[in-house]
Amino acid sequence: LAPLRAALDAIRPADATAMAAAHAHLDVLTKPVGSLGRLEELAARLVGIQGAPPHVARKALLIFVADHGVASRGVSAFPAEVTRQMACNFVRGGAAASVLARQAGASLTVIDVGIDGELGSEAGILHAKVRRATRDICVSDALTEQECLQAIVVGLELALARASAGVDCLLVGDMGIGNTTPATAIFCALHGLSPAEVTGRGTGIDDAALARKVDAVERALARHGPRHAPLEILASLGGLEIAAITGVAIAAAASRVPLVIDGFITTAAAAIAMQLHPHVGDFLFFGHRSNERSHAGMLERLEVKPLLDLGMRLGEGTGALLAAHLLDAACRLYREMSTFASGGVSMRS
Amino acid sequence: LAPLRAALDAIRPADATAMAAAHAHLDVLTKPVGSLGRLEELAARLVGIQGAPPHVARKALLIFVADHGVASRGVSAFPAEVTRQMACNFVRGGAAASVLARQAGASLTVIDVGIDGELGSEAGILHAKVRRATRDICVSDALTEQECLQAIVVGLELALARASAGVDCLLVGDMGIGNTTPATAIFCALHGLSPAEVTGRGTGIDDAALARKVDAVERALARHGPRHAPLEILASLGGLEIAAITGVAIAAAASRVPLVIDGFITTAAAAIAMQLHPHVGDFLFFGHRSNERSHAGMLERLEVKPLLDLGMRLGEGTGALLAAHLLDAACRLYREMSTFASGGVSMRS
Repeated sequence: LAPLRAALDAIRPADATAMAAAHAHLDVLTKPVGSLGRLEELAARLVGIQGAPPHVARKALLIFVADHGVASRGVSAFPAEVTRQMACNFVRGGAAASVLARQAGASLTVIDVGIDGELGSEAGILHAKVRRATRDICVSDALTEQECLQAIVVGLELALARASAGVDCLLVGDMGIGNTTPATAIFCALHGLSPAEVTGRGTGIDDAALARKVDAVERALARHGPRHAPLEILASLGGLEIAAITGVAIAAAASRVPLVIDGFITTAAAAIAMQLHPHVGDFLFFGHRSNERSHAGMLERLEVKPLLDLGMRLGEGTGALLAAHLLDAACRLYREMSTFASGGVSMRS
Repeated sequence: LAPLRAALDAIRPADATAMAAAHAHLDVLTKPVGSLGRLEELAARLVGIQGAPPHVARKALLIFVADHGVASRGVSAFPAEVTRQMACNFVRGGAAASVLARQAGASLTVIDVGIDGELGSEAGILHAKVRRATRDICVSDALTEQECLQAIVVGLELALARASAGVDCLLVGDMGIGNTTPATAIFCALHGLSPAEVTGRGTGIDDAALARKVDAVERALARHGPRHAPLEILASLGGLEIAAITGVAIAAAASRVPLVIDGFITTAAAAIAMQLHPHVGDFLFFGHRSNERSHAGMLERLEVKPLLDLGMRLGEGTGALLAAHLLDAACRLYREMSTFASGGVSMRS
């Protein structure tokens, strides 16, 4: 608990004075005031996080991988062994996230925080396994409080280390067959929603699997009962990768490094982190609106607006990687554009 | 007229068989079917244009610059001299488009197709001036038929030359103080709309200027009368840069090079080009939804869905440059992802 407490205590809000100064700078660049739209908001918030000028050249994607006891209930279109196989695919370079990380110039770290199996000699996967998969959330808490904290600290310490090493933009991704089920359960527990109304098709399940998934979320919530503290919800319903990503969000805020959130799973982790400290949200950039059924609703309840809306529903950090290009654009525009004076351009008439 | 006729005659639709094969390839990559959303549509359409595998590494942005007689009526927030000043800013590297072109790795060509002034010795601007500004559309056709064709051919031949030189993705941008006025007039003439209901604030004009702008569009349409042929509308209401960009769209389709459209002005040019040949649209990618009032409506009437929606309203090709990153991502995913077989990943259960 000590590392988490220390990180939470270190969080300060984004610097409002610096953000106002950033907007003043943006207003004298050679363009109509406000005409770069959300890129101007991005640049100003990055200045509020990092100081001026903002920069996101050194990007690091952390993909947390874990299995889920609830997967045995047939809630996914893929067998659980795919979790381990995809972890290997990430480091071998053949997954979508691998390709987009190369395009973005982002380093890619794959962390086994709870794969249900041994990885053998596969090079390049960071071993930080807390346990082999969560317990089945229909019948038991997914994690003990201790296991949950341990997973949080895996993400926390890794992100703090990246920040210390000079990374200036973090991105998170997830992999875990079945993990839209715990993420949906977390969303329902946070907001008192009905599983039948929000449960979606994840990787693309048929109607029978969807019925099993709704049933699993309902059972988990009935067992969970009225516990409302974010860490209770996380341990009871969450996945190990979701807990680790929650730790990354806390670390990003504590070390004042912008963090790009991906889709449905990472948003569930962000939602927990935002309840743990009121200023975590200052440091988060929501990369995209996923096609998963209730992601749009989750984002609305967090009062955040995603950058992209491309009908994607893959996870892995793919949406975050694409959105990071927009943060990079915002930084470059802030740093490299001429002012009306330096560019020899007349101000408005 | 001969170069335009030859290009129109050369246009063939995107290859439906190749697109179906592309979707079959996308379906065996290591991801749930369809989970990359619009990136899969992009990849498949690029295959339909270029063949497999698709590639957009060599990108060229063409920014066409021209002045507008109607600007003297006070329809813009900026003085007309800004057109020439911004052309210089583009080539000196200080404009938003300059910055984003560097980020995208795109070459940038600035073409004077009708600046109302002499550029002197400013290096790097391509001189293809058809005339110094259009005539005031409130009292006269903007261009003679001959001038309009000449401007179209400037864009057409430049784009054909880029395609012959091996460019595999074209982008267009515009600069011309006052040019949302002719673009709005074109939109109204194409669709029979009321200027008061669609005219927007362009670079950010106040209510008095907006009233002048609505009045100018109304006068132009009253003078224009019932002419409906796309080239008549273009010559009567259009700008020189809009005509040149229309030529680029025709050339892109004729030479089977994907073209990324930017915002409001370039969409008006695209709308004209799409009326000149039914398959031009196969080769166009609409980069973003601009914040200019009626851009969303223009896109809907064209039945196209923009890639980005970031509240931008700058022109210059800035939205196209950001969107090109998504085309590049789609190509890389298509080319570089493992298949379920090669990646050692189990298919759905």
